[in-house]
Amino acid sequence: ANAMLSGLPTTIFSVMSALAVEHDAINLGQGFPDTEGPADLVEAAAGALRDGRNQYPPLAGLPELQGAVARSNARFYGITVEPAREVVVTCGATEAITASLMALVNRGDEVVVFEPLYDTYLPVLRLLGAVVRTVRLAPPRWDLPRAELAAAFTPRTKAILLNTPMNPTGKVFTRDELEFIAGLVAKHDAYAVCDEVYEHLTFAPARHLPLMALPGMRERCIRIGSAGKSFSMTGWKVGYVTAPAPLAALVAKAHQLLTFTVAPNLQRAVAVGLDKDTAYFERLAESMRSARDGLAKGLLRAGFDVLPCDGSYFLIADITPLGFAGGDVAFCQQMTRRVGVAAIPVSAFYDDTGADIPGRYVRFAFCKKAGVISQAVQRLQGVR
Amino acid sequence: ANAMLSGLPTTIFSVMSALAVEHDAINLGQGFPDTEGPADLVEAAAGALRDGRNQYPPLAGLPELQGAVARSNARFYGITVEPAREVVVTCGATEAITASLMALVNRGDEVVVFEPLYDTYLPVLRLLGAVVRTVRLAPPRWDLPRAELAAAFTPRTKAILLNTPMNPTGKVFTRDELEFIAGLVAKHDAYAVCDEVYEHLTFAPARHLPLMALPGMRERCIRIGSAGKSFSMTGWKVGYVTAPAPLAALVAKAHQLLTFTVAPNLQRAVAVGLDKDTAYFERLAESMRSARDGLAKGLLRAGFDVLPCDGSYFLIADITPLGFAGGDVAFCQQMTRRVGVAAIPVSAFYDDTGADIPGRYVRFAFCKKAGVISQAVQRLQGVR
Ligand SMILES: CSCCC(=O)C(=O)O
Ligand SMILES: CSCCC(=O)C(=O)O
Repeated sequence: ANAMLSGLPTTIFSVMSALAVEHDAINLGQGFPDTEGPADLVEAAAGALRDGRNQYPPLAGLPELQGAVARSNARFYGITVEPAREVVVTCGATEAITASLMALVNRGDEVVVFEPLYDTYLPVLRLLGAVVRTVRLAPPRWDLPRAELAAAFTPRTKAILLNTPMNPTGKVFTRDELEFIAGLVAKHDAYAVCDEVYEHLTFAPARHLPLMALPGMRERCIRIGSAGKSFSMTGWKVGYVTAPAPLAALVAKAHQLLTFTVAPNLQRAVAVGLDKDTAYFERLAESMRSARDGLAKGLLRAGFDVLPCDGSYFLIADITPLGFAGGDVAFCQQMTRRVGVAAIPVSAFYDDTGADIPGRYVRFAFCKKAGVISQAVQRLQGVR
Repeated sequence: ANAMLSGLPTTIFSVMSALAVEHDAINLGQGFPDTEGPADLVEAAAGALRDGRNQYPPLAGLPELQGAVARSNARFYGITVEPAREVVVTCGATEAITASLMALVNRGDEVVVFEPLYDTYLPVLRLLGAVVRTVRLAPPRWDLPRAELAAAFTPRTKAILLNTPMNPTGKVFTRDELEFIAGLVAKHDAYAVCDEVYEHLTFAPARHLPLMALPGMRERCIRIGSAGKSFSMTGWKVGYVTAPAPLAALVAKAHQLLTFTVAPNLQRAVAVGLDKDTAYFERLAESMRSARDGLAKGLLRAGFDVLPCDGSYFLIADITPLGFAGGDVAFCQQMTRRVGVAAIPVSAFYDDTGADIPGRYVRFAFCKKAGVISQAVQRLQGVR
């Protein structure tokens, strides 16, 4: 059996979701909304099943959705995209990330990543034979260690993998930080794979800015969006890649080997979603901000420290003030069992072969109904 | 950019489909039905969108579908399966094949494949660093070259990749052939990845037999099925893997890195399909057989030789009697342009680095309405 996969632990998201079910806990672990997405998208998806287009759509996606992705790039970021040649629809952002890395990386190529990082990044890079250069962001503000980042780029750097708004930290990279990264990418003739699935989930004054929108970056970025996250339908598994035509063609070839196409009815519904008015996206972000605030207050009241969070579904709390000595993993298990609230230990977002992995942070998902957040907050008061 | 993907030509299926559109040709190239699948599946998929289960389903699949896959294994082949631990639902058989190979293969492992082969097999194996041992089946009967096959197995053989009913040949491996393969797999302590997407599309007296159903093979086989093919919904991209629990766990880990999950509403509809009565599957096969017969007669009348076909969507014709000297690729292009019928040159199913690739065979898809087949047949009379 494949050695890398044999050594890969079950994803922490499934582990904690199972533990939550077992203990009838409120699941603030795995990041998925507990409300459905917009009803008109559900109806669009149901209606689209009925008009005789259930066979293979084109490999790179339906023109309807490619067009909507292009319009969304233009409307929100001023990025001009040729739909047929620069958009590839994938089975969720997970496939988009894997396909994008496959498209770029040859064995031995170096790839720069930020830690903490999403849990598929490292195994995928290892499978591809990439040499991973990890740069740690420092809590509690997760600032960019600029000298260290510059040193991580070498003549063998093929790409940087950038997640903004960032999971698990809730960090939204600033224009200044992105300009610094853009400078390194350009200087080293490298590419950037930009996981921007939380692009519409930022909290003012923070605002999402795609690296691709910066001068010189249009031809160097593969930008990834997610219908699951932008329309609260995480089960639909529709992702979209925007990339310059030569890179998009390579991503499409990887997609051909991984899944080939995406269900046409879901693609058509997502196209409806991307064309929604700006107010929809604002309301979505506003409801998340309000959930974040409720959770943050409750965590503070329960005795946690709370780290800043400018976007995404996630808030990180520091368990240090609670005086628990067993580390974040044991803390999360106990909190699930004893208090009935599940969350994710942030150490799961670090390369487990590394040293000095912080053991004091816990990630809470706040993409939940107000009533669920307040019930969780109530339970959390018993955590001490 | 990745060297292997950069060198990968656009899939022949997309190339010929595009050429068919350009010349308003009848598309007997890419294998997809031109009728919709069962209306009750469409309604099940539409209904399932509406009851609030549009977030991430479990990684390995919904219990409803895992159970239906297990029941189908038992009903058709007497294979007993533990649904929760031995079934993994994937984004189509394409992902299932890639994930299964990822699960088994370490770089340098040898994998035995039969030629002609489906067009994702080789690039995926190369990406994984497998050493590919190709064994050619000999037209026109595509018999198993037993001595050659035995010689292709070595102490470094990790797996054989077996496609039955077979694309593009329409061959259905016999019990005797499968027993010979099983003997080699057992002797060399190897595994088999069994692409059985056309399992329900065989023509009596031929009948599909999974390698997994043979003595000693239960623990050595990864068996792959496809809702697209069994329910004529190729766009839905729902596949399912049946494997012994330790292998299924590895396939699930690969799936985690490739797509993570599959849309729950489509999973629930496919579960409805798998539980259909046996008559449904018989009618499906019968309608394909009748289309095959109509196409075969028409091809003979038009001057082609026609090769035997016991299953799948595909029939191979030999262009030799037509006296065309330019090879199968040029023939298919000309036939599309001049006669208005698109098909696939069988040389596309060979490793293009190999020698003596046959250039006289053309694959026609017959998974089309009777009226379309007869119109194609009419046009084909002008091919000489
Ligand atoms: C794909 S399951 C994990 C969902 C998620 O993005 C998260 O919880 O971080
Ligand atoms: C996934 S596109 C190709 C469809 C097919 O299986 C074939 O035509 O061989």
